[in-house]
Amino acid sequence: MDNETTAPVTVLGLGLMGTALARAFLAAGHPTTVWNRTAAKASALVAEGARLAPTIGDALAAGGTTIVCLTDYPAVRDLLDDAALEGATLVNLTSGDSGQARETAAWAEKRGARYLDGAIMAIPSSIGTDEAVILLSGPLPDFDLGALGTVSHLGEDPGLASLYDVAGLTMMWSVLNAWLQGTAMLKTAGVDAATYAPFAQQIAAGVAGWLPGYAEQVDKGSFPAEVSALETDVRAMAHMVEESEALGVNAELPKLIKAMADRAIAAGHGGEQYPVLIREFERP
Amino acid sequence: MDNETTAPVTVLGLGLMGTALARAFLAAGHPTTVWNRTAAKASALVAEGARLAPTIGDALAAGGTTIVCLTDYPAVRDLLDDAALEGATLVNLTSGDSGQARETAAWAEKRGARYLDGAIMAIPSSIGTDEAVILLSGPLPDFDLGALGTVSHLGEDPGLASLYDVAGLTMMWSVLNAWLQGTAMLKTAGVDAATYAPFAQQIAAGVAGWLPGYAEQVDKGSFPAEVSALETDVRAMAHMVEESEALGVNAELPKLIKAMADRAIAAGHGGEQYPVLIREFERP
Ligand SMILES: NC(=O)c1ccc[n+]([C@@H]2O[C@H](COP(=O)([O-])OP(=O)(O)OC[C@H]3O[C@@H](n4cnc5c(N)ncnc54)[C@H](OP(=O)(O)O)[C@@H]3O)[C@@H](O)[C@H]2O)c1
Ligand SMILES: NC(=O)c1ccc[n+]([C@@H]2O[C@H](COP(=O)([O-])OP(=O)(O)OC[C@H]3O[C@@H](n4cnc5c(N)ncnc54)[C@H](OP(=O)(O)O)[C@@H]3O)[C@@H](O)[C@H]2O)c1
Repeated sequence: MDNETTAPVTVLGLGLMGTALARAFLAAGHPTTVWNRTAAKASALVAEGARLAPTIGDALAAGGTTIVCLTDYPAVRDLLDDAALEGATLVNLTSGDSGQARETAAWAEKRGARYLDGAIMAIPSSIGTDEAVILLSGPLPDFDLGALGTVSHLGEDPGLASLYDVAGLTMMWSVLNAWLQGTAMLKTAGVDAATYAPFAQQIAAGVAGWLPGYAEQVDKGSFPAEVSALETDVRAMAHMVEESEALGVNAELPKLIKAMADRAIAAGHGGEQYPVLIREFERP
Repeated sequence: MDNETTAPVTVLGLGLMGTALARAFLAAGHPTTVWNRTAAKASALVAEGARLAPTIGDALAAGGTTIVCLTDYPAVRDLLDDAALEGATLVNLTSGDSGQARETAAWAEKRGARYLDGAIMAIPSSIGTDEAVILLSGPLPDFDLGALGTVSHLGEDPGLASLYDVAGLTMMWSVLNAWLQGTAMLKTAGVDAATYAPFAQQIAAGVAGWLPGYAEQVDKGSFPAEVSALETDVRAMAHMVEESEALGVNAELPKLIKAMADRAIAAGHGGEQYPVLIREFERP
């Protein structure tokens, strides 16, 4: 779609991430307008073909889609509070929480803008490759951000991009922590991290494959112990805690795993299957 | 290797798991001797072609490889304390910790047996399929347990099978818990578990792919912030904790993730990359 990949775009905010976004648009052939509070940060991009807007008003008047990528939401509100937003399409890729995203969406819409909220699950150097995951939520986009990476539109609720982002980060750090826990255990037996890693990788990817099936149990609210019951699992969890303590490694992660299962059993779910723990995760 | 798949085997212990093991051996054509404290549990297997040993001594005298699968290690020691083990090959697939495995190996070897310790990462119904992962450690096996599932020999230290087992379980529950945490967060926005699961699956499998690379940093003991520094990560972690609290879901897992990173930063590792947390996981 030649007309889409060459549609004009504007990038507000040229920090590490904003600069990477603008550069990816330029590389894909989009006419690209840029603006930054500290204008000097635009010079390399201008040399690469970007047009520098002298004021925020000029930047918004350039038309096309306006990408916003500043430090945080208060900075976004600061910057746009006095600007003319009527008719603008704003895509706010600044990191924030779902509450901020929904508030900012309502605020922008009241001022006549079309507003999408987004989250970037990537580092600046991967922007422009398929590895960079860009999450969008809000009205269905009529523009193409494919120049930035792999773009997903998650739904109309503008809070969704932030929620998927934070859920994804929880998964990321959990896989890393479980791997570190196992690595610490195996190091006590002289097994190096490189030897253990492929095993951890295989388990993580294997278990990830169960999630769609387990999700059906959560959505049905019915947790028959087809594979194993929580009270069987908890025996192996006790063993995991004891082994960590006996080896002299950190036992907090094993203990948290067991504590959540113990609570679900105390609540009467011992004969049900693991995903019944959603009841505990849903509770403050 | 026809002679290997038809090598004689003996199974001691016909609980849920022992019965599944014996049945898989029979299905693969191994002449199979069985023994159980409660002999009545052997009748179905005998009807399927197993030979019932009337005493534990007869079972051990049947030759070939002897698989042991009882409730726990004390039961194994109870059972075999008075038995003639000289020349026997024992493969103990009973669950236990690495300390028990090493002690039992030393005890069995002193009595003239060849001893391997093992762990079964599978449920009885999957035994005999590739999905059933059987971990072995101790002397290199000269027999073939391929009839049971996917068999890996991890090394000479008889404690390794237990350690890999418990490390793998930590990964399993961590992936499930991170998925449940994300599911609970997204449910507050009306997203059902089935909609979120493929996203969680993709993140888990993607992050699993980083482990071999991160393992090199652990083995070198050098953690340059090539992708991002811990003090950058911890800002997103704070956000993850706050979002969980704002949504009214459980925040213990996010808090533990952040607490471990905070401690590593306090210890001076803020400018290093995530795997430097191995220092925290190695500490009681
Ligand atoms: N870097 C990453 O790896 C990464 C990854 C995923 C998401 N993100 C998110 O992307 C966003 C930007 O990150 P970054 O790495 O580009 O940060 P950064 O390098 O610190 O840049 C911050 C940008 O915000 C501007 N800014 C801050 N306050 C402002 C205000 N009141 N008015 C106008 N402009 C203001 C700065 O302008 P000046 O140049 O004038 O100071 C600068 O352009 C953040 O929300 C971050 O969480 C970053
Ligand atoms: N089931 C699973 O999903 C699963 C998965 C992975 C690993 N495992 C491990 O496999 C092992 C066996 O599990 P299972 O499910 O088969 O358990 P089970 O159904 O409870 O069977 C226990 C077996 O141990 C025997 N036993 C217990 N104490 C004994 C003693 N003092 N002397 C002689 N025999 C004794 C029992 O004999 P009687 O019949 O006479 O009572 C029975 O054969 C356990 O270590 C378990 O952790 C099981």
